[in-house]
Amino acid sequence: MSTHRTLSAALVPALLALTVPATTVPASAAPAQGTGTAWEIVEGLTTEIGPRPAGSEAEDRARDWGAAKLEALGFRNVRVEEFKTLAWTRGPESASLTAPYAQPLAITALGYSVPTPRGGLKAPLVYFPTLAALEAAPAGSLAGKVAFIDHAMRAAQDGSGYGPYGDVRRKGPSVAARKGAAAVVIRSAGTDGHRNPHTGVTMFADDVKPIPAGAVSNPDADLIARTAARGKPMAIDLTLLGKPNPGATSGNVVAEMPGRDPSLPIVVLACHLDSWDLGTGAVDDASGCAIITAAALAAQQGGQPLRTIRVLWSGNEEMGVRGGGGEHYARLHGQEPHAVAMESDFGADKVWQVKFSTAAADKPLVDKVKAALWPMGIVPHDGAAEGGADIEAIIKAQSLAVIDLGQDGTHYFDLHHTPDDTLDKVDPAALQQNVDAWAAVLKVIANEPGPIGKFTAAAE
Amino acid sequence: MSTHRTLSAALVPALLALTVPATTVPASAAPAQGTGTAWEIVEGLTTEIGPRPAGSEAEDRARDWGAAKLEALGFRNVRVEEFKTLAWTRGPESASLTAPYAQPLAITALGYSVPTPRGGLKAPLVYFPTLAALEAAPAGSLAGKVAFIDHAMRAAQDGSGYGPYGDVRRKGPSVAARKGAAAVVIRSAGTDGHRNPHTGVTMFADDVKPIPAGAVSNPDADLIARTAARGKPMAIDLTLLGKPNPGATSGNVVAEMPGRDPSLPIVVLACHLDSWDLGTGAVDDASGCAIITAAALAAQQGGQPLRTIRVLWSGNEEMGVRGGGGEHYARLHGQEPHAVAMESDFGADKVWQVKFSTAAADKPLVDKVKAALWPMGIVPHDGAAEGGADIEAIIKAQSLAVIDLGQDGTHYFDLHHTPDDTLDKVDPAALQQNVDAWAAVLKVIANEPGPIGKFTAAAE
Repeated sequence: MSTHRTLSAALVPALLALTVPATTVPASAAPAQGTGTAWEIVEGLTTEIGPRPAGSEAEDRARDWGAAKLEALGFRNVRVEEFKTLAWTRGPESASLTAPYAQPLAITALGYSVPTPRGGLKAPLVYFPTLAALEAAPAGSLAGKVAFIDHAMRAAQDGSGYGPYGDVRRKGPSVAARKGAAAVVIRSAGTDGHRNPHTGVTMFADDVKPIPAGAVSNPDADLIARTAARGKPMAIDLTLLGKPNPGATSGNVVAEMPGRDPSLPIVVLACHLDSWDLGTGAVDDASGCAIITAAALAAQQGGQPLRTIRVLWSGNEEMGVRGGGGEHYARLHGQEPHAVAMESDFGADKVWQVKFSTAAADKPLVDKVKAALWPMGIVPHDGAAEGGADIEAIIKAQSLAVIDLGQDGTHYFDLHHTPDDTLDKVDPAALQQNVDAWAAVLKVIANEPGPIGKFTAAAE
Repeated sequence: MSTHRTLSAALVPALLALTVPATTVPASAAPAQGTGTAWEIVEGLTTEIGPRPAGSEAEDRARDWGAAKLEALGFRNVRVEEFKTLAWTRGPESASLTAPYAQPLAITALGYSVPTPRGGLKAPLVYFPTLAALEAAPAGSLAGKVAFIDHAMRAAQDGSGYGPYGDVRRKGPSVAARKGAAAVVIRSAGTDGHRNPHTGVTMFADDVKPIPAGAVSNPDADLIARTAARGKPMAIDLTLLGKPNPGATSGNVVAEMPGRDPSLPIVVLACHLDSWDLGTGAVDDASGCAIITAAALAAQQGGQPLRTIRVLWSGNEEMGVRGGGGEHYARLHGQEPHAVAMESDFGADKVWQVKFSTAAADKPLVDKVKAALWPMGIVPHDGAAEGGADIEAIIKAQSLAVIDLGQDGTHYFDLHHTPDDTLDKVDPAALQQNVDAWAAVLKVIANEPGPIGKFTAAAE
């Protein structure tokens, strides 16, 4: 998998001494390296596949890569389960402020944006400091104009800013379209200060005609805000040629570590294999696949668990709001008995909290999980465990118990959906801490002999 | 200059309540603001002009902006001094690894690169871990191939990594051309981990035919290194369409705060007005112009100094190795008596050290300067003061005394020559510390009544 780590240091000078130009082993600038199964999965996916947009040929290659990797690691019943999906394909994209000052803007289109004219859309740019300010604009008042929506997302350890501030991306384009806007540009839903805009899916409501929609980086949004504050009319030249790609093929990779008692409901662990196209999907979500897979293996140490542990490397999570891997999984596997569902899809930083959505009768089991995590400094929180997009459908279908191992998200939205989502952002030690925490939980729940209860928020 | 700072906070809710879509004052996401002359210059240049590449129309607008600003601040003898220069103009640029794995690369061309074929250059990519490894390759051995040069630049407070590791950019392309390479790609001369490659000028030696030359970001260089380590042949598809632009117009802006005794040799303070095109030149070098200008004004507080202080906002520093603003200044002003030259061109972080290149007889003056900086925590260092590119020619022409106020460069090469060189990277408090340090030095040297000696490295 990672041959350069097996080359001895003694070999390096000999290779450097070669005077024939050749592909020699990197010596001077080798980045920090990890070891173990989880690292190998993140390193392999990001190096040998890279960006894996939903419905793309690269996502297909990633499924083959994943299936081969899971086979090699000793998983059983490894299979690829393809499905059709409404994907989206990026096109050329650029933008400039043209008035009152000419300035290039770092921009990227949002998923499900429709294209501008090929030569660009030239229009007045209207500044809205918040989504609420845009919502207050009269219907039709933005005809022929481009709306800019600002906001003030800040970093938070639990990532809670992404809910409300992420709505600028999710809902803002529909609101702008409803006001008659020709296009919409938002401040990226992100917490960094780099010229890397954050992409992500937007959802056009059924009652609006989709419009071109893009996000500028935070420094560019700052520039627009400063320019707006000067009070002179602004104008933009906007080219976003990405467009929806219906009928694309995505797919899940599913594999198992069989339990000693096949009659017991299984534990399903999910991540997603697809990534946004701008980065290599290292933290979103190769790390999740790495963590759950390495943990499923680590849980075998000390004896085969009672219950089967299934891993789901889901396809099309990112564009899956209209039919992704999680829904397809529930469609194919909704009749098979599940006990607990868990997902890892929040980067590669350390687990710091645990949350539960479990039947009241399972308090002894929950206490056992808490005790297993206690020596790792992982603190129980009262909020409901919600899983993630790739297990949402199966949780709903079977009223499943859910355990969330909450990762530190302070820096997650610096990287999320940007070109910066690359391997160098993964700390091998933090990645391994995730594996250890997941394995600790699995050793408890996959060895639970008694029934594990159903959970419905209303019932508990 | 910066109208939004003069709007009272009480106004903001009223503006937000407007339901007509209009250009309203930013409220939710206003970035950290500074005050004072230095901040206004950096904020103004980055907001109202933005990127100012040498020889461009934007650099011309920046000269007008600068002359108007200096007039408004009360400077005298404000003039623009234009000159012709060999500039360079960026074109479309992109690159992908095509073997053994398909991966897009974040790339940018180096200044004085010549263009690839319009449809891209498709060629084997050969990995060299160091510039020395490339130099060891036989002549002609890279015919039809693209050389990749890796290196291991690390951050340093005094920026000392930029000398040796920057040579990969300055000299590497010539070395590759001499080996017959069809093109060259380098790891950016930078210390960050973002997908923002660092541009910068390269110099082709007279004995080689220039080739296309680009830099990839550090994460992309890591990817190439990891891929090379797998030992399979690599290939690249490279499009870099930038090209030299001879006969372009650049120019300096020169202005003065006259001293009480016009017969005394003057103090000249330099910065450069041009910037690379990828960012808005906030730290390189709007901050330098801001610092010297605000300091020249601050030095007037408590009484007009004895000597005239002249500021030089130089044109074409970045591409000026073959004739920039510093040479033009020496050509026009080389006969006027100068006493001391200083330059600010290393970002906006705090001054932490001071260095001197002065005549031995001027030790009492040097001690006065040290004493003035002592309360600010600025420590004297023994190395020679060297000024900067914009005063190099006048220093040489007149054997001038030089004082270097060394800024903390730990993070400078995270931003240098990248899209990330934007206003949000400037800390207003650190910027003001620079102004205070410069003003403290000026109050000593511009009030020195006696002769200030010449300095030649050999003589001292």
